[in-house]
Amino acid sequence: MGEPVERYAVRRLPFARLGERDVAFFERLLPGRALTAQEEVKPFNVDWLKSVRGCSQLVLKPQTTAEVSQVLRYCYEKNLAVNPQGGNTGLVGGSVPVFDEIILSTALMNQVISFDKVSGILVCQAGCVLERLNEYVEEQGFIMPLDLGAKGSCHIGGNVATNAGGLRLLRYGSLRGTVLGLEVVLADGSVLDCLTSLRKDNTGYDLKQLFIGSEGTLGVITAVSILCPQKPKAVNVAFLGCQSFAKVLETFTTCRAMLGEILSAYEFMDEKCMELVERHLKLSSPVADSPFYVLIETSGSNSSHDEEKLNNFLEQAMASGLVTDGTVATDDKKIKRLWSLRERITEALTHEGYVYKYDISLPVGKLYDLVDDMRARLGQSAKNVVGYGHLGDGNLHLNITAESYSHSLLDAIEPFVYEWTARCSGSISAEHGLGFKKKQFIQYSKPRGAVVLMQQFKAMLDPKGILNPYKTLPSAPEWGLC
Amino acid sequence: MGEPVERYAVRRLPFARLGERDVAFFERLLPGRALTAQEEVKPFNVDWLKSVRGCSQLVLKPQTTAEVSQVLRYCYEKNLAVNPQGGNTGLVGGSVPVFDEIILSTALMNQVISFDKVSGILVCQAGCVLERLNEYVEEQGFIMPLDLGAKGSCHIGGNVATNAGGLRLLRYGSLRGTVLGLEVVLADGSVLDCLTSLRKDNTGYDLKQLFIGSEGTLGVITAVSILCPQKPKAVNVAFLGCQSFAKVLETFTTCRAMLGEILSAYEFMDEKCMELVERHLKLSSPVADSPFYVLIETSGSNSSHDEEKLNNFLEQAMASGLVTDGTVATDDKKIKRLWSLRERITEALTHEGYVYKYDISLPVGKLYDLVDDMRARLGQSAKNVVGYGHLGDGNLHLNITAESYSHSLLDAIEPFVYEWTARCSGSISAEHGLGFKKKQFIQYSKPRGAVVLMQQFKAMLDPKGILNPYKTLPSAPEWGLC
Repeated sequence: MGEPVERYAVRRLPFARLGERDVAFFERLLPGRALTAQEEVKPFNVDWLKSVRGCSQLVLKPQTTAEVSQVLRYCYEKNLAVNPQGGNTGLVGGSVPVFDEIILSTALMNQVISFDKVSGILVCQAGCVLERLNEYVEEQGFIMPLDLGAKGSCHIGGNVATNAGGLRLLRYGSLRGTVLGLEVVLADGSVLDCLTSLRKDNTGYDLKQLFIGSEGTLGVITAVSILCPQKPKAVNVAFLGCQSFAKVLETFTTCRAMLGEILSAYEFMDEKCMELVERHLKLSSPVADSPFYVLIETSGSNSSHDEEKLNNFLEQAMASGLVTDGTVATDDKKIKRLWSLRERITEALTHEGYVYKYDISLPVGKLYDLVDDMRARLGQSAKNVVGYGHLGDGNLHLNITAESYSHSLLDAIEPFVYEWTARCSGSISAEHGLGFKKKQFIQYSKPRGAVVLMQQFKAMLDPKGILNPYKTLPSAPEWGLC
Repeated sequence: MGEPVERYAVRRLPFARLGERDVAFFERLLPGRALTAQEEVKPFNVDWLKSVRGCSQLVLKPQTTAEVSQVLRYCYEKNLAVNPQGGNTGLVGGSVPVFDEIILSTALMNQVISFDKVSGILVCQAGCVLERLNEYVEEQGFIMPLDLGAKGSCHIGGNVATNAGGLRLLRYGSLRGTVLGLEVVLADGSVLDCLTSLRKDNTGYDLKQLFIGSEGTLGVITAVSILCPQKPKAVNVAFLGCQSFAKVLETFTTCRAMLGEILSAYEFMDEKCMELVERHLKLSSPVADSPFYVLIETSGSNSSHDEEKLNNFLEQAMASGLVTDGTVATDDKKIKRLWSLRERITEALTHEGYVYKYDISLPVGKLYDLVDDMRARLGQSAKNVVGYGHLGDGNLHLNITAESYSHSLLDAIEPFVYEWTARCSGSISAEHGLGFKKKQFIQYSKPRGAVVLMQQFKAMLDPKGILNPYKTLPSAPEWGLC
């Protein structure tokens, strides 16, 4: 297979090409952990959605920060491009190479460094899998401050690098508040040690923030210090049916007022989503046919108080006609079953053929208008237009499916979806990031001055541009620094 | 009065000196809002603690972002240094000029731009006073996510510029999570518009984070978008006496477990603090003589649930001897009275003479050891060595008083206090920032590589160094970029 110089209308930048001497260096540095066999490298070249495919010939699996530092120092010196990769669960093509970038996997950096049972502060390597970490801290009476569908595979380093949102953000806030410290290896191999474990620290600029959400383009996160909330003593989930989106919104306002501090999630999905999880995953809806479904989770310290609050709310929601049908779960097994209806929508969608995915922030009142408008616009040309997401955070996942990829359908969707979002001052990427697929659309959510400043940060921290090239920031032609 | 070229062992940098033509320009630009009369300028030159004094001859009071932009464009072109100033309530000399910097006051930028009653998102100008904002959003069922003793004077822009912590951080998290957007005027006068009102936005690097906590050295914050939590329906305060610091800690662990999600503050003060607020402010302690006092606040959505939780906790704390005496307040007036015991300690201390102030983050178990060690070390040479602070956040306010400033006492305190903190991997400034007084000590909490990177950011964003010079980052000799 020849090495392409252009993919997806992007030209390969003039990085060095991997040579035998380079491979020999890495094999000496990481014995048995520098993969070159095609079948071993292949899964690292393809993203989870199978929508982007690179042609890297080398996967490196360091175990320590010192090894990451040596790898980057070498690559920087030799002008070799690098694609940092965590659990490879990203949805915007940020986690796989575009051309032949060396894949730097955090898979073997999976050690917990410390956990403080008094403060709940966890320090661990970047390659720890989120679900494993949650199990680990749960044994000690805490939970991770974030949770998402990909928890079984995603790495905490990748979560931080992409500023992952997920299912607990409504309650525990974003990683910008819960991440207390980071260790980062910069493009030239130098190690930036900001791995403190303090709730508060106002000594100078908060450098770690720049790396949170930078998608591996400014440095490679090697370790994370994160504040874990106490494990709630009582968790309840209610799964409800609503007859209109207006009622979904009104239910939210009512439930936020009545549940207050114990509300830990408010998720919604439309009937199309339910149809797909039933059809493809054989899950069954616990609630009779409704145009919209809502999942409400409470987490608190007193189960009888929480159940009383939840029951009061449900009574009012039923009595006032906001909700037409519903079920409540207090035991773990049923809670998991209800959550899977919501969490596995992404998976169900992949069974439909090609999926056009949009992850939009909007003022909550307008959240579903975009789905309605898109459905009307596309008519029969799309198989499905579905909407679901984190309503409590104003975050819509708009997904459009078709038997296979079609350029004309894409043209009908874009830039319409971005223009629509920009008109409402929304964000074209609420939590997925820009990665490779969305980077050219940044201008719909950020003014030119901000993008120019971002490019200056990139140029300062990675002057050769070797870290995750072709990602996050728009490429030169339209947006050159000049 | 001649213009000094050296103050506090710092040399004036070669900025231009304010001339008549400059003053004429500003008087034209801001008619009636460019103050030059000595008695008008004077209060802006001195900090709240009266510990740092500048000799600026000009105070500018813009009302709009466009005016701030014009001011900075002019200053940048003419190489005139600028000291951005909010409510001038900072404690580290960051808010007043060191030499003759032009004071850019946000006092007249005090308009609310918008408030969304569904989401609780407030957008306002930087000069809004925190307490006024809290009153404004309270009328609509929300509260500001931060609260601090200086609320009656401090500006929200200054709060954000210094990443203020305060009394609600335990519950609502830091400004890094609650600030959703900023508008900032850069050193050259260009306006960076990141004033979005979205709970989630992952489009590129989060530039606003760099300005949060940068103390006006990277840009002037002109507007803030901030997420306000719902106003709790029930607030309770318990004020308790503990016989040892070990019991203060154990009470914290017990109360966090039993109060869970309704715990909104856990503050402590030692008996010396109580003595001072009683003596100087004529407040009276509601609790019998104890070596330590604890203030616990709960905020929740159901008063009977909250009172039940609080009573259960108090019963257990009393029964197990953690707490020896206590009082509970549920009405506003008594709540305010109890809070004032804690909030007015800073004020009481100023009546004692000169105050050496330290704002330290430490692992919570070691918090009071530093006070004990310092008291033993200083013996009779200090009038008082007191400790209080945000125990729930691991944040100690260590204050040492003497009749007047003495260099030898300072030498006994510093660098001892910083070395002690560094040995515990603490922060030498948890929430006050570095400002002018603490900037030379940054190396006790940040590695050299991090400081060099900070200096690179400063050089990139403010190449002439006109914004709040002599602040936050250490000066050249030891730390030059080379």
